[in-house]
Amino acid sequence: MPKSALLFFDETLRSLDLRYFCGFEVHDPFIAVQVGSKRIGVLNALEYGRALKESSFDQIIPLEELTAAAQEAGVEQPGPSDHIAALAKRLKIASFDVPEDFPSAILVKLLDMGIDLQIIDGAVFPDREIKSDDEAKWIREGNRCASAGFAAAEAMLRASEIKGRRLVYKGKTLTSEMVRTAIQTACIAAGGFPADAIVAGGDQGCDPHCRGSGPLRPHDLIILDIFPRMFKTGYWGDMTRTFLRGEPSDVQRDLVAAVAKAQKAATKAIKAGVYADSVHAESNRVFDELGYKTERTAEGAVGFFHGTGHGLGLAIHESPRLGSVHRKLKKGMVVTVEPGLYYPGLGGCRIEDVVQVTDAKPKKLSSFHYNWVF
Amino acid sequence: MPKSALLFFDETLRSLDLRYFCGFEVHDPFIAVQVGSKRIGVLNALEYGRALKESSFDQIIPLEELTAAAQEAGVEQPGPSDHIAALAKRLKIASFDVPEDFPSAILVKLLDMGIDLQIIDGAVFPDREIKSDDEAKWIREGNRCASAGFAAAEAMLRASEIKGRRLVYKGKTLTSEMVRTAIQTACIAAGGFPADAIVAGGDQGCDPHCRGSGPLRPHDLIILDIFPRMFKTGYWGDMTRTFLRGEPSDVQRDLVAAVAKAQKAATKAIKAGVYADSVHAESNRVFDELGYKTERTAEGAVGFFHGTGHGLGLAIHESPRLGSVHRKLKKGMVVTVEPGLYYPGLGGCRIEDVVQVTDAKPKKLSSFHYNWVF
Repeated sequence: MPKSALLFFDETLRSLDLRYFCGFEVHDPFIAVQVGSKRIGVLNALEYGRALKESSFDQIIPLEELTAAAQEAGVEQPGPSDHIAALAKRLKIASFDVPEDFPSAILVKLLDMGIDLQIIDGAVFPDREIKSDDEAKWIREGNRCASAGFAAAEAMLRASEIKGRRLVYKGKTLTSEMVRTAIQTACIAAGGFPADAIVAGGDQGCDPHCRGSGPLRPHDLIILDIFPRMFKTGYWGDMTRTFLRGEPSDVQRDLVAAVAKAQKAATKAIKAGVYADSVHAESNRVFDELGYKTERTAEGAVGFFHGTGHGLGLAIHESPRLGSVHRKLKKGMVVTVEPGLYYPGLGGCRIEDVVQVTDAKPKKLSSFHYNWVF
Repeated sequence: MPKSALLFFDETLRSLDLRYFCGFEVHDPFIAVQVGSKRIGVLNALEYGRALKESSFDQIIPLEELTAAAQEAGVEQPGPSDHIAALAKRLKIASFDVPEDFPSAILVKLLDMGIDLQIIDGAVFPDREIKSDDEAKWIREGNRCASAGFAAAEAMLRASEIKGRRLVYKGKTLTSEMVRTAIQTACIAAGGFPADAIVAGGDQGCDPHCRGSGPLRPHDLIILDIFPRMFKTGYWGDMTRTFLRGEPSDVQRDLVAAVAKAQKAATKAIKAGVYADSVHAESNRVFDELGYKTERTAEGAVGFFHGTGHGLGLAIHESPRLGSVHRKLKKGMVVTVEPGLYYPGLGGCRIEDVVQVTDAKPKKLSSFHYNWVF
């Protein structure tokens, strides 16, 4: 009977589905297939030994064997599509299912060779959304790592003196870069790395993806968004706190209180069977009721102009999104909850935690205090 | 006249061509096109402001405008292919050129919509291989960062006492993890991060991609491969040294001398106009002459079973490869030179530097001493 197989050609930092599938990391594109329930990897000599030890493949085929097979079939310098054709022949595979992001060039070459391919519509592993107890534990470890970063940042702010428009730490003007380095150093010791940790003060915080640079000012809101990828597991933590060193104004206090309220309301709405967009609607409802407007201006948007959260796991942003998409949350999903408000001139505030969906109250997978004035 | 345009749909950590093209980092897939010499990015509200400031786009179109256009055209929940179709209409683009790794699902949907697409054969930007003076400088900075890592590792080994089969650092058994943390901490302070720095002692060093774990042993060869990605530029450094704390055996000395000799010979062979595979042949020649055999065994390969080097830039592994491919090196290319030998029981040795191809002697872009016994 002709067999069909799931086919990947990618590397594991690009394709998290492949990472999920093969259980280890490979930083150059390689071939992996699933035939029935059997997982087969094709790896060159450089990766072969490590794959034997670390991967979850049931079988590993040396790439060199497929090169030889393709060369016997008359291809002088075989490329990935020739290797895949040789593999199809060897395993008697009649047809491949490939993910949506399968490389177009290889798809077209394989179709030209007469190999039957179907593109999978949507997620390759829909169950990747549902996190096992182990996965929830790994995400919690990621957030513990992020918390080590917040503690380091807080200590640094507390130890800084206010001198006019500057914060002075151990004799130096405190900058986003210095705080980021302290966060990264603390995270490394806790087993992960937040490459793009955001430490954005004042108006810099109003660009939610601006990493922050230069001197941090006293009495400014400072958004700290720390998302470390854990070395051992590849799973992410993702948390945000907004700090201020000095004296907040009433308007700043109100802004932070509004975001905290929205974050609580959205979290409370999360439950198996609830729609993702209704969670997002909770954040919007709170901001609307409190009179915080969202608008697009010539320089960008102000107010609350991103989703309330996103799935978290092997990817920092994955399904489900807590935004405008109308779909039901399922038990076991893990999502961030991170409403925010951004007004240049006043600054930005975002508060982010991570929860796992249950049939009742969501289970918190992140823990760090909410004090923000130091 | 109908226009054709280069089209990307990707995020900048996945597609380094897109990173090269747009000059800033975006961690969710987005649309970017080049029409004539004009670079246009399509970004949502979350990225819009930052794109205005940081990107090299000549024009930024808010994604929300394309969503609205697609909805007017009758698509209720527009996806990327609908956005691309709306963009084609707006910019009067008749045909797109897409990279080889363009996502298959979007390719097929666009073709179904009657949009004309061609897959670019080979590199989107062949000139990405040729590094400008700025790029060479950024790679050199990456290697300076790696060198800070080597210095930290060396200091740690020197400060460790030999106690039987253990190395003892500040009262603790020295492990790969401890040395990796020290390397990472030093690199962060130097502006980059080596996520997967290899610290592999003894037989662990025989798997060239094994990161190393557990206690490091005295008198063992320890491979340290440090490849930091720089925070500011996104360019990589990549260097390897092999260290030993204690007393090397004669066989270990011979192994290290052989690798050093091969590394020198391969480096000397690098010049504009020379074939990449002839550089690799130099490493092999030295090992052959000295009697080091390369073989595949049941547990993996032994000897020298990887390429001599690879291009380095925005990707840690990029074109050109110094392996079996027969193509000429060009002035301005930047490559690693990293032959190695691996024999379980004896251990592994690799030495890696980075050079830029010139019309004469290659220009070294890495610098750290070659002492290895501490």
